[in-house]
Amino acid sequence: MKLKESTPKKDRFRLIAEFSENQACYMIWPERSDNWRGGGKLAQGVYAKVAEAIHRFEPVVMLVSKNQYKNARKKLSPTIKVIEMSNNDAWIRDFGPLFVQNEQGVIRGVDFRFNAWGGLLDGLYFPWDQDDLIAEKVCEIEGIDYYKIAKFILEGCSIHTDGEGTLITTEECLLSEGRNPDYSQKEIEAVLTEYCNVEKIIWLKQGIYFDETNGHVDNILNFVRPGVIVLTWTDDPEDLLYKICREWEQVLSTTTDAQGRTLEIHKLAYPDSVFITKEESEAIDMAHGTYPRLVGDRLSATYVNYYTAKGAIIFPTFDNPNDKKAKEKLQALYPEKEIIGIEAREIVLGGGNIHCITQGIPKNKKVREQAT
Amino acid sequence: MKLKESTPKKDRFRLIAEFSENQACYMIWPERSDNWRGGGKLAQGVYAKVAEAIHRFEPVVMLVSKNQYKNARKKLSPTIKVIEMSNNDAWIRDFGPLFVQNEQGVIRGVDFRFNAWGGLLDGLYFPWDQDDLIAEKVCEIEGIDYYKIAKFILEGCSIHTDGEGTLITTEECLLSEGRNPDYSQKEIEAVLTEYCNVEKIIWLKQGIYFDETNGHVDNILNFVRPGVIVLTWTDDPEDLLYKICREWEQVLSTTTDAQGRTLEIHKLAYPDSVFITKEESEAIDMAHGTYPRLVGDRLSATYVNYYTAKGAIIFPTFDNPNDKKAKEKLQALYPEKEIIGIEAREIVLGGGNIHCITQGIPKNKKVREQAT
Repeated sequence: MKLKESTPKKDRFRLIAEFSENQACYMIWPERSDNWRGGGKLAQGVYAKVAEAIHRFEPVVMLVSKNQYKNARKKLSPTIKVIEMSNNDAWIRDFGPLFVQNEQGVIRGVDFRFNAWGGLLDGLYFPWDQDDLIAEKVCEIEGIDYYKIAKFILEGCSIHTDGEGTLITTEECLLSEGRNPDYSQKEIEAVLTEYCNVEKIIWLKQGIYFDETNGHVDNILNFVRPGVIVLTWTDDPEDLLYKICREWEQVLSTTTDAQGRTLEIHKLAYPDSVFITKEESEAIDMAHGTYPRLVGDRLSATYVNYYTAKGAIIFPTFDNPNDKKAKEKLQALYPEKEIIGIEAREIVLGGGNIHCITQGIPKNKKVREQAT
Repeated sequence: MKLKESTPKKDRFRLIAEFSENQACYMIWPERSDNWRGGGKLAQGVYAKVAEAIHRFEPVVMLVSKNQYKNARKKLSPTIKVIEMSNNDAWIRDFGPLFVQNEQGVIRGVDFRFNAWGGLLDGLYFPWDQDDLIAEKVCEIEGIDYYKIAKFILEGCSIHTDGEGTLITTEECLLSEGRNPDYSQKEIEAVLTEYCNVEKIIWLKQGIYFDETNGHVDNILNFVRPGVIVLTWTDDPEDLLYKICREWEQVLSTTTDAQGRTLEIHKLAYPDSVFITKEESEAIDMAHGTYPRLVGDRLSATYVNYYTAKGAIIFPTFDNPNDKKAKEKLQALYPEKEIIGIEAREIVLGGGNIHCITQGIPKNKKVREQAT
């Protein structure tokens, strides 16, 4: 579909919040054996569970490599669409399209560059060329026009928006040496302003310690609705994140959003520390240049890394006492949605969670724009 | 989408004629250098011309391998959709889905098996596994339910239908040893009756001599509309096909179709014999087990191998004096359509023509069936 030479800001399209209604949810079938233990079979099972849960509320499309096509097709309900697409790994929120919308409700895609979370400096695998093509391929399939940014690296999990002009991100990630080292913070703000068309960017200093993505914001918080945030939290003074949580809270509670609102903050305690076991570590293939997963490494397990469907919240659980409290808290925040927990240890073993492996395609008010 | 355990006949779905209105036309980007000379670059140019011509009248989707994705995307108009799909070669009419329709106008796909025109006996390449998956992958993308036939080999180019219960095919192809050697002609008729839901099967003995597909019917004739056929023809008594043309005419003029009509036959003289040149033969890669293309081999050049769009006929030309006469004849047969000739020597060098490389998706009266 037509690649726009303009920018969303010029065309008055604005980054849309992920709690907007979706016409479909896209995922990618996991398979690389140097990231997913046991040849990815356990992760595939959990991805399938996530897909089936979302599928109760909106159409789901599973993208899958040539080699895993028949396997994915067989493992999923017939009404989940399975479409072939080459990939390097299964994190569509990071390298799938972002979406912007204008006042008439037309949706367009935004395709930033992707370099596996740090490129040759501290990226997590090589190559990442197929991941980097996925945003435009998804837009092609959906018939959505898209903007393409020639050089700028940005992952979808590194920003959150309220859809009303506010964007939250972290310095640790966006200022990292492996992404856009030639851009100053001001220049990065200029890119985000032009391609996301936001007016207020809230910078948190850093993400959670044991997150290999250089501090993605989607393991810190999520927008419930404009003005309302759910924040990863601990009250254990011995925990590594104790101080960091308070720094996040300090920033978020003393700023206002693009509409001038003070943010309402709800705290969501993450599970007790979750670590990689010997059995888990040993079932991962060795490979050149991929991220090691060592016994005893702490996993980036949080509850805020969830998917927002129209009628449900699909959130990760970890066979942990905090699971139940998280569900209650989420139910209170979303009284009209069904709150569905899915045991997600296999996903966090691969380096992310339910939010990272899903990407909603917002409802397009006009199915097809006129050719321009 | 749901794989139906039933058959079209049981569900009262009938094979739809290709002159019905389409919602899109699918093609596959050619690339294999052991079939297309010069690394496929010339053929790609002609495929692009065909795509652009059809695109003036209906949406076009170009399927393309991972490796050629960016190349195809760049060579085609932005409003032609480009979707990744693995393939072994570029003949979607043969291995794409057939389509059946019920009285309510609902479309379903039919997915026969494909073995590269003869499998291990006299097939044209090995393997053909990715081609054989394309029918179901296209149905997935389009959201069309489909029937799958476990064992029976059938190519789309080997049958023609009027959409009203008549099917025309050849004994040379359907009874060939490389396809369904365990099936008698009667048993083959039973399969076609069950999965195409036709009442009258007209058998021609053989196809054109120099057609490596064992006599596909789409190089013999095409349906203009129910009861009206355009037939490949020569009046040159020295030509190899002189006698065969008359045998076809004999069969077609002495039978009736499923509705009891005598067929109206229009003859369309093919171009003077077209042969492979030394330069063309030498620009094809040698490879294990693929069909040799030798200097002096006669090419299967006919004009009936055309694509029927709603507002146009896209037909092959061969820089031949007969091109002009063919255009006039087609214009007389289709007075309301634009008749567009495309120089197609590069396609026939690869073993087929415009009809073989295109597959229309009929307009679906109901976009989505209810889940069953």
